[in-house]
Amino acid sequence: MQSLGVTGGAGLAYGALSTLGLAPASAQVSYRSPAMGDLIGKAGAGARVAILGGGPAGLCAAYELGKAGYDVTVLEARSRPGGRVWSVRNGTTETDLNGETQTCTFAEGHYFNLGATRIPQSHITLDYCRELGVEIQPFGNQNANTLVNYQSSTPISGQSVQYRTAKADVYGYMSELLQKAASRGALDDVLSVDDKEALSSFLSDFGDLSSDGRYLGSSRRGYDSEPGAGLNVGDQRTPFGMSETIRSGLGRNFSFDFGYDQAMMMMTPVGGMDRIYIAFQREIGDERIHFGAEVSAMHNTPEGVRIDYTRDGTRTSLDADYCICTLPPNLVGRLANNLPGDVLTALKAAIPISSGKLGIEYTRRWWELDDRIYGGASNTDKDISQIMFPYDHYHGDRGVVVGYYNTGKRHLAFESLTHRQRLAKAIDEGAALHGENYRRDIASAFSGSWRRTRYSEGAWVGWSGSDSHGGEATAEYTKLLEPVERIYFAGDHLSNAIAWQHGAFTSARDVVTALHTRVAAS
Amino acid sequence: MQSLGVTGGAGLAYGALSTLGLAPASAQVSYRSPAMGDLIGKAGAGARVAILGGGPAGLCAAYELGKAGYDVTVLEARSRPGGRVWSVRNGTTETDLNGETQTCTFAEGHYFNLGATRIPQSHITLDYCRELGVEIQPFGNQNANTLVNYQSSTPISGQSVQYRTAKADVYGYMSELLQKAASRGALDDVLSVDDKEALSSFLSDFGDLSSDGRYLGSSRRGYDSEPGAGLNVGDQRTPFGMSETIRSGLGRNFSFDFGYDQAMMMMTPVGGMDRIYIAFQREIGDERIHFGAEVSAMHNTPEGVRIDYTRDGTRTSLDADYCICTLPPNLVGRLANNLPGDVLTALKAAIPISSGKLGIEYTRRWWELDDRIYGGASNTDKDISQIMFPYDHYHGDRGVVVGYYNTGKRHLAFESLTHRQRLAKAIDEGAALHGENYRRDIASAFSGSWRRTRYSEGAWVGWSGSDSHGGEATAEYTKLLEPVERIYFAGDHLSNAIAWQHGAFTSARDVVTALHTRVAAS
Repeated sequence: MQSLGVTGGAGLAYGALSTLGLAPASAQVSYRSPAMGDLIGKAGAGARVAILGGGPAGLCAAYELGKAGYDVTVLEARSRPGGRVWSVRNGTTETDLNGETQTCTFAEGHYFNLGATRIPQSHITLDYCRELGVEIQPFGNQNANTLVNYQSSTPISGQSVQYRTAKADVYGYMSELLQKAASRGALDDVLSVDDKEALSSFLSDFGDLSSDGRYLGSSRRGYDSEPGAGLNVGDQRTPFGMSETIRSGLGRNFSFDFGYDQAMMMMTPVGGMDRIYIAFQREIGDERIHFGAEVSAMHNTPEGVRIDYTRDGTRTSLDADYCICTLPPNLVGRLANNLPGDVLTALKAAIPISSGKLGIEYTRRWWELDDRIYGGASNTDKDISQIMFPYDHYHGDRGVVVGYYNTGKRHLAFESLTHRQRLAKAIDEGAALHGENYRRDIASAFSGSWRRTRYSEGAWVGWSGSDSHGGEATAEYTKLLEPVERIYFAGDHLSNAIAWQHGAFTSARDVVTALHTRVAAS
Repeated sequence: MQSLGVTGGAGLAYGALSTLGLAPASAQVSYRSPAMGDLIGKAGAGARVAILGGGPAGLCAAYELGKAGYDVTVLEARSRPGGRVWSVRNGTTETDLNGETQTCTFAEGHYFNLGATRIPQSHITLDYCRELGVEIQPFGNQNANTLVNYQSSTPISGQSVQYRTAKADVYGYMSELLQKAASRGALDDVLSVDDKEALSSFLSDFGDLSSDGRYLGSSRRGYDSEPGAGLNVGDQRTPFGMSETIRSGLGRNFSFDFGYDQAMMMMTPVGGMDRIYIAFQREIGDERIHFGAEVSAMHNTPEGVRIDYTRDGTRTSLDADYCICTLPPNLVGRLANNLPGDVLTALKAAIPISSGKLGIEYTRRWWELDDRIYGGASNTDKDISQIMFPYDHYHGDRGVVVGYYNTGKRHLAFESLTHRQRLAKAIDEGAALHGENYRRDIASAFSGSWRRTRYSEGAWVGWSGSDSHGGEATAEYTKLLEPVERIYFAGDHLSNAIAWQHGAFTSARDVVTALHTRVAAS
């Protein structure tokens, strides 16, 4: 699959661009935008492209095609750009598919991202931020002062433990054990004398071991009272025992920090992720984006494509030369269409995932004042899964905490509830981690469940027969990479970065490249 | 020492405050500022306090004493507040003790902190930021995309490797080895069957091991080309071998991230660390701070203290009821004084440390554009020790990179050089990590060595007979915690957080508490 990707994916794109005389900007980003000059004297100059959906893939495609003078029209059912990138702030109103209407009353300047909220350094999302002038800031994706809290058969069960404490103990005992095994000669068949010496030196530092190779606690665990001046060396915490540390599963989420897409530094736009899409909208031009346009039909016709949509109660048809359909794959089959049966079958292999978030506005930043937490998330095996702390308004008089961001079964425990019920459950579970502060000083809250959100009906998709975020190239996935006559599909679901904006952007770029290559050759 | 700290340090402070009817605000911060009402009807109301030094300890003491109406006068030799907290920006001019004068020409809005640059979440430095209204932002203290580069006897020697790659391989092999040892029964005397099962589950995730317990590489290592849409799964990097990974010492700096004072999240003031001291200055009042005042003598007198200083060429004496001396301990003995011999001996046990930084202004943010680095530091065993990337002006047209921040022998390799020589050496060593980008697009640079900086002559101190940042309470350290008649000593050197602003603040607070208790009892 890796070699297929290199020779068939990036390689193919490069070849296509070469026919236009373009070279990739760098090894990492093998993409070059269509340009005005590319179509001079070509029959396809000014080709009309209907783009269904004004989320990341749709707006990216419109923006990129616009650079070469394509006549793009974006049809977006919502009244805002961004799709599943949704920053909830004062005035946000939404009626969900449970029939409940919420209106956000957060104080001015406060928000949370109900959809995408963080950007890894490697993602082209950051390149769009740069290109579009969207100001960015660090996103706190790791914090030694946030808490872990899990059930186990040990005395630690249900206790809130700082990440720093959990890491110190787990790394300490892990190092002690490996040190012991190596020194006993238990690994002499795979470790040379030199290896063992280097390993011992590393483990001593990694685990903060004593000179005789034991873990006896560490300042890395933190203090019950802070060291200060004079003779105040602080009140260092006593380590947990080795067996309870191991059996409690305190380290079950450590690898999150190492993940390719999650390791610090992570970035996010100042003021909300939707700033990216407001910038795309500005560049594309309001006249090219029809908000409130609910698409009902998508057909290939002998001359091109015809899209039917309803806007302000009026049904309209849009004829174009090409269509880029970025609607969620789970919703495409509902359109009146003349797609082949195998394409409709392939679309059904994209299974919508249940996920959502709840934002709680507090009028006291207790996480800073009492818990010394400046961003990052606490982690638990309760249904809330995690509590994410704000990365803005530090030291302000209020802030919005994400009371849960969960998926699958854990989110199913919330999605059918009313908003009040969700909030009550989130507060109960959150208070089990962060204490009574969690119940106090709440000004307002807003929740969303993507499977119950109109025009999405899913947070992202998983492909039947695949357990990865793309990349396994099931037959259905691969099927949808090819256009159906003049209809192209794009979105994060057709990428190796499902649930990331990067996936939507790279998919849009691939489609733009394919379409532009076709037009330029016409 | 730990129990001494609790019962003798924090306990003593609490007792002292109790006599004033004050209770500590919380278990963590057992400090309550002196208040106006405390001295009503007391003989000491309006007592005059001469404070030597306008750095963190001096300004904190002046600010806190000011709350209760003390008549404070700060004498500061420099023309700016902050002492070793020094943000270098356009117009900064300094003549060092090598006799060389530098003037900073960075573009407007750009700077680097030549002294303190980061704040842990637990430090009271953040409480002062809140109290003084100093805006803060995250400081990038960890970055998976920055590089490690070390010499070794392996093929990895001298290669630049991303932290994420180094961590994936080290954690992978570490997990594989421990898994192997445990499954062989080599640790059965210390691990129960349940322990082994839990450990195996943890290691499998921590090391990203295959189902048969081997490390075969991981997406955590990163990609040579980024995964994208369609069939582009990216070009995943091949892992290093186990032996070379271990013997190369790639993991020698991993524990930095776990350190109590260094683990993310870390914070810093927007616009420079000196914003804190400009805010202190504003609160204290310019009329109470004499800049350009070089103290030459400090004496206890029968009625109080007498300080002699020179300002604008004029020698002046300041009489006061008390003195708080926050000058670096290595400089106090040079004053004309009547300190007892044992105090002068104790001061000599504070040994100044060699350290410094060099800021390089680039007109192209190559670390973002080419290396996808948004803050954080690269680490090396070369003399530069590390390269720190800016945490501001993301996506801007320029930025200031700290080309070295090193101590001890590694800094000694720089401190006697001219600025041009320092820059040349820093660029040569930096280019060995980051390539030819490191040599290009340099607009200007500024360097400083604290042992060669007037009025400091050291970055911080180490105590003779102690290898820790305080807390070992050598006889000399302990000696200086007590006042000499009406002269008190304060500074980070008298704390368990040497080289941190927190140490200076807590020391100042201890002295303020002791002095206030004495005055209130008079």
